[in-house]
Amino acid sequence: MDDTDDFRERIRQSFGRQPAMETIGATLTRIEQAMVEIELPFDPKLTQQHGLLHGGIVSTALDTACTYAAFSVIPVDASLLTIEFKVNLMSPGRGERFLFHGEITKPGSTIIVADGRAYAISDGPAKLIASMTATMMVVRGREDIVG
Amino acid sequence: MDDTDDFRERIRQSFGRQPAMETIGATLTRIEQAMVEIELPFDPKLTQQHGLLHGGIVSTALDTACTYAAFSVIPVDASLLTIEFKVNLMSPGRGERFLFHGEITKPGSTIIVADGRAYAISDGPAKLIASMTATMMVVRGREDIVG
Amino acid sequence: MDDTDDFRERIRQSFGRQPAMETIGATLTRIEQAMVEIELPFDPKLTQQHGLLHGGIVSTALDTACTYAAFSVIPVDASLLTIEFKVNLMSPGRGERFLFHGEITKPGSTIIVADGRAYAISDGPAKLIASMTATMMVVRGREDIVG
Amino acid sequence: MDDTDDFRERIRQSFGRQPAMETIGATLTRIEQAMVEIELPFDPKLTQQHGLLHGGIVSTALDTACTYAAFSVIPVDASLLTIEFKVNLMSPGRGERFLFHGEITKPGSTIIVADGRAYAISDGPAKLIASMTATMMVVRGREDIVG
Repeated sequence: MDDTDDFRERIRQSFGRQPAMETIGATLTRIEQAMVEIELPFDPKLTQQHGLLHGGIVSTALDTACTYAAFSVIPVDASLLTIEFKVNLMSPGRGERFLFHGEITKPGSTIIVADGRAYAISDGPAKLIASMTATMMVVRGREDIVG
Repeated sequence: MDDTDDFRERIRQSFGRQPAMETIGATLTRIEQAMVEIELPFDPKLTQQHGLLHGGIVSTALDTACTYAAFSVIPVDASLLTIEFKVNLMSPGRGERFLFHGEITKPGSTIIVADGRAYAISDGPAKLIASMTATMMVVRGREDIVG
Repeated sequence: MDDTDDFRERIRQSFGRQPAMETIGATLTRIEQAMVEIELPFDPKLTQQHGLLHGGIVSTALDTACTYAAFSVIPVDASLLTIEFKVNLMSPGRGERFLFHGEITKPGSTIIVADGRAYAISDGPAKLIASMTATMMVVRGREDIVG
Repeated sequence: MDDTDDFRERIRQSFGRQPAMETIGATLTRIEQAMVEIELPFDPKLTQQHGLLHGGIVSTALDTACTYAAFSVIPVDASLLTIEFKVNLMSPGRGERFLFHGEITKPGSTIIVADGRAYAISDGPAKLIASMTATMMVVRGREDIVG
């Protein structure tokens, strides 16, 4: 797996090219092979009508965590497309900050399945607020989709 | 269904209390009973690493369209929680603007199922880029979750 | 699309090689390009603990309807694998017979997305009992997976 | 949680009233609080056109494992309805027998989320073939839906 030795650097660079991550204030806080974490401080501009973190923003961060977990194991000349994902919103998106953990459940040369979990963090124990299962496709040779 | 006569105004007000919608630049462009549409101009700040609209932002707008489609049929003293949704990302999020259409597939007093479709619009025909199925729960008597 | 001219016959043959369809008593009742229907009489042996058609059996028939809807548009030397599906069970599986309708929402050379709907039929109007979104992958050159 | 002390017996009884489980040859092999396992020998009558265990049968067994995992924590006078589930089919359903593991991810008084995993077992290590996330609703006072 020589060609993924530099996956941390490639993930950081790719993440840095995602303006949506800057817009929602997300940062990469952990990169391991097959596992990535993203964090987000609570920000009122990301809330829905009840003042809670919008479920769509939860899914934006989870999708990104799952995608980069998968990214860590693909060849350097390949990229990924998210085909689909499902999110269960289990508790209100209320907290000082949020942790989004993505990891590979099933690697593959064409299809990679990843699972994610989102946690709200304040004082006290982290609270599970959402889970995701995402299906990604490994793509090669598409010049419009690189990294 | 007297108590939903003013659903258009209630939806506009609730939408106006969603900072996340302002952050992504979404506007309500159609409100019918059991069907709502939201539009979004393309904005580079919402893109992922390939310059396409982030799948999470697609799901944020679809979730909102589905939620308000459901909102149009619930009693005035009730509110909605999205329990879960699934998104299929079918074509790249590339276009001048995007249309998100949500409609109720199965109404209910406790559980409402809605389906959404997202389209990219430029010159030429609208292009289907994503679909969603969302499950919402009707909640009452929770003072922290109103409207 | 010359090579799909005989899709009806290929679908009938493939369906006939699915013992699971015989086990649940399903029959193909409609084959169009991009759209397939399957029917099933109510059978107590397929029920769950409340005497209703088991949700897993609903998904078995819907998955098959969606798969053959996709099958109708792929090349003759290709086959399909269901990558994932989601089912919403919206009303109890109670009826004299059940109709499962699958159709393609998004065709593609690698990934095909299909949607399905299940109806319970007795006297009176057909009742929507479930919906499915399924993601299929077109595969070629795998001798273990043909037709 | 006195009223769930006898959850093992109640689960066995409810499982025994599911003709679909007998039809597919499934047996309950493990019942713990919040976790249930079901097993199934390979049977050609449950296969699809490639001779593999049908994905719908995989989902039938996973749905049942997830439902009884949830069943173990609800009050004795309550029952469960599966609202929706998503299945990812990750490897072919090929093996001597299959193990379906369901466990609660998020308990709740109204909504319970459970996750399931399916494994194919032959000689050698168990192989993960599918995962499920299922959303169940706790229902009371519906005489047509008991146990």
